[in-house]
Amino acid sequence: MPSSRRYALILAGGRGTRFWPRSRTKTPKQLLRFLGERSLLQETYQRLRPSIPPERFWILTNEHLRGAIARQLPEVPRRQILAEPAQRNTAPCLGLAAHLIHGMDPDAVLGVFPADHHIARSGAFRRLLAPAFRAAGEGKLCVVGIQPRWAETGYGYLEFPPGAEADRREAVTVLSFREKPVIEKAREYLAAGRFFWNSGMFFWRADVFLEALRRHLPRTAALLASAPSLGDRRFAARLREIYPRCENISVDYAVMEKADNVSGVPAGDIGWNDLGSWNALYELLPKDAQGNVSLSELAAAASSGNYVEAGGKTVALVGVRDLVVVDTPDALLVASREAAQQVGEVVKLLEKRGRRPLL
Amino acid sequence: MPSSRRYALILAGGRGTRFWPRSRTKTPKQLLRFLGERSLLQETYQRLRPSIPPERFWILTNEHLRGAIARQLPEVPRRQILAEPAQRNTAPCLGLAAHLIHGMDPDAVLGVFPADHHIARSGAFRRLLAPAFRAAGEGKLCVVGIQPRWAETGYGYLEFPPGAEADRREAVTVLSFREKPVIEKAREYLAAGRFFWNSGMFFWRADVFLEALRRHLPRTAALLASAPSLGDRRFAARLREIYPRCENISVDYAVMEKADNVSGVPAGDIGWNDLGSWNALYELLPKDAQGNVSLSELAAAASSGNYVEAGGKTVALVGVRDLVVVDTPDALLVASREAAQQVGEVVKLLEKRGRRPLL
Repeated sequence: MPSSRRYALILAGGRGTRFWPRSRTKTPKQLLRFLGERSLLQETYQRLRPSIPPERFWILTNEHLRGAIARQLPEVPRRQILAEPAQRNTAPCLGLAAHLIHGMDPDAVLGVFPADHHIARSGAFRRLLAPAFRAAGEGKLCVVGIQPRWAETGYGYLEFPPGAEADRREAVTVLSFREKPVIEKAREYLAAGRFFWNSGMFFWRADVFLEALRRHLPRTAALLASAPSLGDRRFAARLREIYPRCENISVDYAVMEKADNVSGVPAGDIGWNDLGSWNALYELLPKDAQGNVSLSELAAAASSGNYVEAGGKTVALVGVRDLVVVDTPDALLVASREAAQQVGEVVKLLEKRGRRPLL
Repeated sequence: MPSSRRYALILAGGRGTRFWPRSRTKTPKQLLRFLGERSLLQETYQRLRPSIPPERFWILTNEHLRGAIARQLPEVPRRQILAEPAQRNTAPCLGLAAHLIHGMDPDAVLGVFPADHHIARSGAFRRLLAPAFRAAGEGKLCVVGIQPRWAETGYGYLEFPPGAEADRREAVTVLSFREKPVIEKAREYLAAGRFFWNSGMFFWRADVFLEALRRHLPRTAALLASAPSLGDRRFAARLREIYPRCENISVDYAVMEKADNVSGVPAGDIGWNDLGSWNALYELLPKDAQGNVSLSELAAAASSGNYVEAGGKTVALVGVRDLVVVDTPDALLVASREAAQQVGEVVKLLEKRGRRPLL
């Protein structure tokens, strides 16, 4: 397969409420700079840029974010920043992208990349692309697996055959997709050595994916097949009719778990981190002698293991441990690091109260 | 003793760093509104006002606070708001006040009241004044004892004779002053029933106190005796010479613990609280079903027992317990309620760093 057939689809429509109060509806997680000068979206783009030229990037997002994304990625053709007219999870939006690209390039091979993950080792990451795109070119639905570093209960797992090894840089059969496990199960997976975290990075030929969608999600496939091409002046209006009628389902549930042509590349250490919460960010950043991470002036007494950011404000900690403290002009979060996954709950609470300006 | 001889001296020179970041050098604890519309200083004044007319109030403070105090207590004659030229604890400033008032009214009887305590039951408080002023008029150095409600290690204690009872509204002999005890000792005091908290409220005739000062703190007494009267145009300049040479010592250590004419009024329940920390304030305020106290909009998940104030800002708590969270425009405090007494430590830290604007 010539590399000129390769396209990158970046999934950039998430809300990332677990990074509230910094993440808001109009500036969600993927648009924020957590580590260094670039947003997570820009990091994702730059990581792929040596392998794929700008005109073959497609960004899948929503109407709120389209302008901000165009400003962050000025090289990407603006019309390829697609705004979904409704939130319908990943299956419909990947179906739409496959339909549109296939219409222009019937031999297209697509790589799908979440916009909001951090990958410390770009070189090691890029070395995975060749075997993954190759498997896709050969007609597989290919997924990248991440070698687990602990018994995580927050991710889905891929089951590889006995003997599958990380970092061999070749795709092997995926025996099954496993949902987020309970802790005992997660420990078994870790011990077994052939269960890998589902990274959410996928590779397939556009035609192969559309065929899989027709088989496993026929109603949505038929709806999307009726969408006009991107250049058609009726495109936007027609999409607003079609899209909300698509099923609201992830590509994992709708296609990957059902298809029989799934393969996976078991990755070695690429420094992958999905930045699932403030706690994940804390784990990544350098700490002082008391294990505190602070992006602001800190005055601490008998306090350890805390994550602090408060802009230009001075923060004093007295006798507290393992907290997340994030201050913004209109909202302040104080959470235990352990409960950082539940930050989205207060966002729901504020939504219920109709506190729109805070969301 | 005619009540026309009664004067109120309010001690309003403290810094109250344990209420940082709300308390600052120019707006310390006694000038802040914690409960209701009035500052603690104004509460103290209003509590005494039915018993003592404005022209017989004297406020002992420092140069930083003089203007703000005059604005909070416009009825008090401005020249009776005395600014100490240096911080010298309570013995010298009470000596100075006694000297100045005695010069104008040789029969004056003085009541001394800290400006930064909260007393919920004003009526019960005022009923203590008669026996306390009476004992003072009879030549005693009189102190008010507060019936202990728990085994507190942060206060000094007064030892009354066996059989002394709270709320009898008469002064009895004080056998001894006891310093802040260790917890075992505090428990003994509580069980014994005749040890009372030292409230820091004192009553004495000006001449009796000056005599006690001459005997127990002669160097400071002699220095203060050389101060001109308040109306003298050399007063301020002379005070700046004398005052810094006075001993830096509390009236408890310098006089009360040594004198043999000490009596005390054992108070019943006057709702006394010295508001020694954010935790003490938390204890006083009404709580929601999760035991949280919040002066701002609160969105809480799995969080209980917290004190929150953040002006107009929304505060989200996730999985945290028993914290103090106080936000101001330039500084944010997060402390455990248990460690609230140590908040002064971060103020010292910021002082060392030369962060004047935050102090």
